[in-house]
Amino acid sequence: MSNKKQIIVIGGSAAGPKAAARARRLDEYAEIIILQKSPDLSMASCGYPYYVGGFFNDRNMLLSTLTGVTRDPEFYFNAKGIIAKTETEVMAIDRESRTVTCKKLKTGEVETIHFDKLIITTGSTPILPPIPGINLEGITTLHTMQDVDYLRKIRDEKKVKKAVVVGGGLIGIETCEALHLAGIHITVIELLPQLLSFLDWEIAKLVENHVKSRSVDVITQNGVVKFLGENGRLVGVKLQNGIELSCELAVVAVGVTPNVKIAREAGIVIGETGGILVDEYMQTSDPNIYAAGDCVESYNIITGKKVLAPFGDLANLQGRVAGENAIMGNRVKFPGTIQTGICKVFSYAAGSTGLSEHACLKLGYANIETAINAGPDKPGFMKGKLLITKLVADKKTGKILGAQCVGPGDVSKQIAQWAMAIKGNLTVDDVANADLPYAPPFSSAIDHTICTAHVMQNKLSGLMHGISASAVKKKVDKNDNVFLLDVRDADEYEEIRLGIGETLIPIDALRRRLSEILVDKKKEIICFCKISLRGYEAERILASHGWKNVKVMEGGINAWPYSREK
Amino acid sequence: MSNKKQIIVIGGSAAGPKAAARARRLDEYAEIIILQKSPDLSMASCGYPYYVGGFFNDRNMLLSTLTGVTRDPEFYFNAKGIIAKTETEVMAIDRESRTVTCKKLKTGEVETIHFDKLIITTGSTPILPPIPGINLEGITTLHTMQDVDYLRKIRDEKKVKKAVVVGGGLIGIETCEALHLAGIHITVIELLPQLLSFLDWEIAKLVENHVKSRSVDVITQNGVVKFLGENGRLVGVKLQNGIELSCELAVVAVGVTPNVKIAREAGIVIGETGGILVDEYMQTSDPNIYAAGDCVESYNIITGKKVLAPFGDLANLQGRVAGENAIMGNRVKFPGTIQTGICKVFSYAAGSTGLSEHACLKLGYANIETAINAGPDKPGFMKGKLLITKLVADKKTGKILGAQCVGPGDVSKQIAQWAMAIKGNLTVDDVANADLPYAPPFSSAIDHTICTAHVMQNKLSGLMHGISASAVKKKVDKNDNVFLLDVRDADEYEEIRLGIGETLIPIDALRRRLSEILVDKKKEIICFCKISLRGYEAERILASHGWKNVKVMEGGINAWPYSREK
Repeated sequence: MSNKKQIIVIGGSAAGPKAAARARRLDEYAEIIILQKSPDLSMASCGYPYYVGGFFNDRNMLLSTLTGVTRDPEFYFNAKGIIAKTETEVMAIDRESRTVTCKKLKTGEVETIHFDKLIITTGSTPILPPIPGINLEGITTLHTMQDVDYLRKIRDEKKVKKAVVVGGGLIGIETCEALHLAGIHITVIELLPQLLSFLDWEIAKLVENHVKSRSVDVITQNGVVKFLGENGRLVGVKLQNGIELSCELAVVAVGVTPNVKIAREAGIVIGETGGILVDEYMQTSDPNIYAAGDCVESYNIITGKKVLAPFGDLANLQGRVAGENAIMGNRVKFPGTIQTGICKVFSYAAGSTGLSEHACLKLGYANIETAINAGPDKPGFMKGKLLITKLVADKKTGKILGAQCVGPGDVSKQIAQWAMAIKGNLTVDDVANADLPYAPPFSSAIDHTICTAHVMQNKLSGLMHGISASAVKKKVDKNDNVFLLDVRDADEYEEIRLGIGETLIPIDALRRRLSEILVDKKKEIICFCKISLRGYEAERILASHGWKNVKVMEGGINAWPYSREK
Repeated sequence: MSNKKQIIVIGGSAAGPKAAARARRLDEYAEIIILQKSPDLSMASCGYPYYVGGFFNDRNMLLSTLTGVTRDPEFYFNAKGIIAKTETEVMAIDRESRTVTCKKLKTGEVETIHFDKLIITTGSTPILPPIPGINLEGITTLHTMQDVDYLRKIRDEKKVKKAVVVGGGLIGIETCEALHLAGIHITVIELLPQLLSFLDWEIAKLVENHVKSRSVDVITQNGVVKFLGENGRLVGVKLQNGIELSCELAVVAVGVTPNVKIAREAGIVIGETGGILVDEYMQTSDPNIYAAGDCVESYNIITGKKVLAPFGDLANLQGRVAGENAIMGNRVKFPGTIQTGICKVFSYAAGSTGLSEHACLKLGYANIETAINAGPDKPGFMKGKLLITKLVADKKTGKILGAQCVGPGDVSKQIAQWAMAIKGNLTVDDVANADLPYAPPFSSAIDHTICTAHVMQNKLSGLMHGISASAVKKKVDKNDNVFLLDVRDADEYEEIRLGIGETLIPIDALRRRLSEILVDKKKEIICFCKISLRGYEAERILASHGWKNVKVMEGGINAWPYSREK
């Protein structure tokens, strides 16, 4: 054996190649071998839906560098000094002898290779629930390049007319858009009462409304109980409620499960979530073995709990840490995740960082406050687009726990700002006076993020009492005797209105028309406008004139997820 | 006198109306009066260049709410319960009697009004240097609605063919774009060696190159010594170097000076920078008097020094704090500024937060490190656009001191992320593992911000030795005997090349062609590629093979601000 360090990386998608490249830059003389089961290396897997959807047509862009060089074994050998063995499946890890046994899939040839340090980046596999008919032709996932080629061919052939997407998470929603753009009628079927479970219900509902506005059908609280076939081909699905939908294609996107089989068989400790247990150095229970990417269990920085966080960006960051520590000894740490995510769906984006309200409640965080802000990302004269943000903070300390944002506006910047704010342990008061880049082409004078913090400050200090659209809807449906006050202008009311029994008194007339509010001073009054800035002003006015139970419907009509009168 | 609090706000642009509105929401019964010299209220002054440039054509959008209601005295009275007296100039403040004397400009009528608390938001005035000819017709600033109307008329009439913009700061650059879009040939004249002095020279130069690519002339290190007139009208300018340029229009944008005259005359303390001295409560030296916006002196959170920071977003935030404290007593603080700014110029944006390298050097921060990263904002397959970022950090602690970013990519999100990072006191290591929202429509798997932090980590840990393009240029110009190594592909080299005596050895051939580098192992070798990722890999390879003085030209060809061979 030589004096050179022998590094083996199992897996060549995201975390693996990053770990290998980092290792190489730290040690020009180490022997670094990537063992990859698939024929492809370093695939831009998050880009799959965009190739399927025709955002671009050059398949090789998923597999090549910025300058157009395919990331194949030749590239890895020549440019990176890394031996990448593709179509090579690892059969077993022997921790005692520090060897990996692998098989060339094409020839069946078996090889045993020594390692000084091993990095496991085996990724994840889409969950295929054991539903009858799951093996019919026409059922796929969107996970491998083969899946990509299959779906892209369907797009290009233009024969499939109807498809179902099983699962309304990130991948499901991205797939829904991609196939819709291929001219296929889509039905998204989701077991939960909402799409995108990282969002709270009323925010997810806004995304659902947008998806439906593109003639996509969305069925929630329902699942597929059977895939229906004819001659081995999918012809439809049967749902829990008995309904049958015809379709020629089904994409299953109900989540992924970490690939831990070879790690488990080698006696490496698997964590409570089912991912490989790693410490902050990305080291497994075996000091010679690191792991990174979708196959590991991550640490949630906010909750201190272990979670699965199969995100492409984290895989890269974890891989970089694993690669460095494998060469240099444990010297750099990966701090964990706050589970930041985002997806595009038609003209909307939907993103989240940190904890949602329902995540907080599930975790037993009782003392939280939420605030919803629905306003534009830029001034009207620069064609600002709507953003709807829901912020979650600790009631006592004001510490930011999470933010969700959806809409046609610049969601990505909002979530990025909140993610950095959480990283910096910032409070609502900190964000309320943040010094962000302002010019009209990019944001409003008071950025939407800051404005959201202001709404939260007003709630935390008791100046504003909020009520969610869903709580208002429940009251209306129950015929609760609440007084609903729309304080927009008459023209706005003519154009768009909820029609839930509200009284219109424009804010500019409210002070002189207070006598028209013929309700008991203790009765609940709910004020709203388009975004609920004027709704908030109305609360301040009414509260100052003796009404004791005034609330603002947060986010106003912009955040109302139900149908309207007009 | 009534029991109601009497609040007077002097100034009705940004900070004033915000202070008044906040005060109203905290006290429905206070009497709140805005005294405004101009006929307009709450003007979106940062939007002026975009109206002049024809990004939108409805003048009233500069003066109206999101729902299209003009923010005039009637609106303020009815919707906000605020008395706004326009065309009313404040003559004097009497601190002892707590009164303000003001004059109706139209009638000459003088009125003295009592206050319990006064909020001074008198803004700033553009500096008009005492250059001969400055009063000729055809010379203007872009500061008031009158200026806006004057310039918009010039745009619409299409008679002016040539204009000069005196001053290459934010407003000058925005004005340059606006007038260029009006079909006017523009020359920007700047005294300093660069545009946009918040950027370091080599970053500003990239913006200058972009501006010039649109057939705008830029003259730096030169100033106007005389405005040339005929019959009282501007016909040209004479520059310091004797050159005369003909032009029919000149826009002077050499900065603003805080309006502190009435404050000073009333004995309120003016700070060292020339702005009104305020504490963190926005309270002046007189406890009954607050101030906010362009007229005050701000506190720089990073340096602890007093600065002028005339930004529209800060004016709003300061106004909100002043308005609250005027009503409630000192209970909320404005923490200060990190001098975040951004502007759009043609297809580029240019932004900065915190300290530039030259600002650090001026302040005597010796122990800093810088890093330049030039890469796309999104994957190539999603049509990623270039970003060039320069990061400044404390060498010892890794604390982020500042970031600048320019380019056609999403600069605004980059600067927002860095601004939040600085707000949270984050280090380079923190940002290097940040959990940001990733999906291909919005960013790369390793966000440009994180990648920039990685470059900085590599420099701080000694893995990468950087050299700036300007330092390389100096060596080339001096015929320093350095070995310049371009490690891109042959095709890339055929398409674009510096032509500064470099040797081409593509990175994928470097390991086997090391023998071609026939230079002494102690000789300086400077590696580069397009963005200098491969340049960095080349340094790692050469350093591992015994070369002792290998550097990477940071940002590669993307950040090279000089002319190229091709």
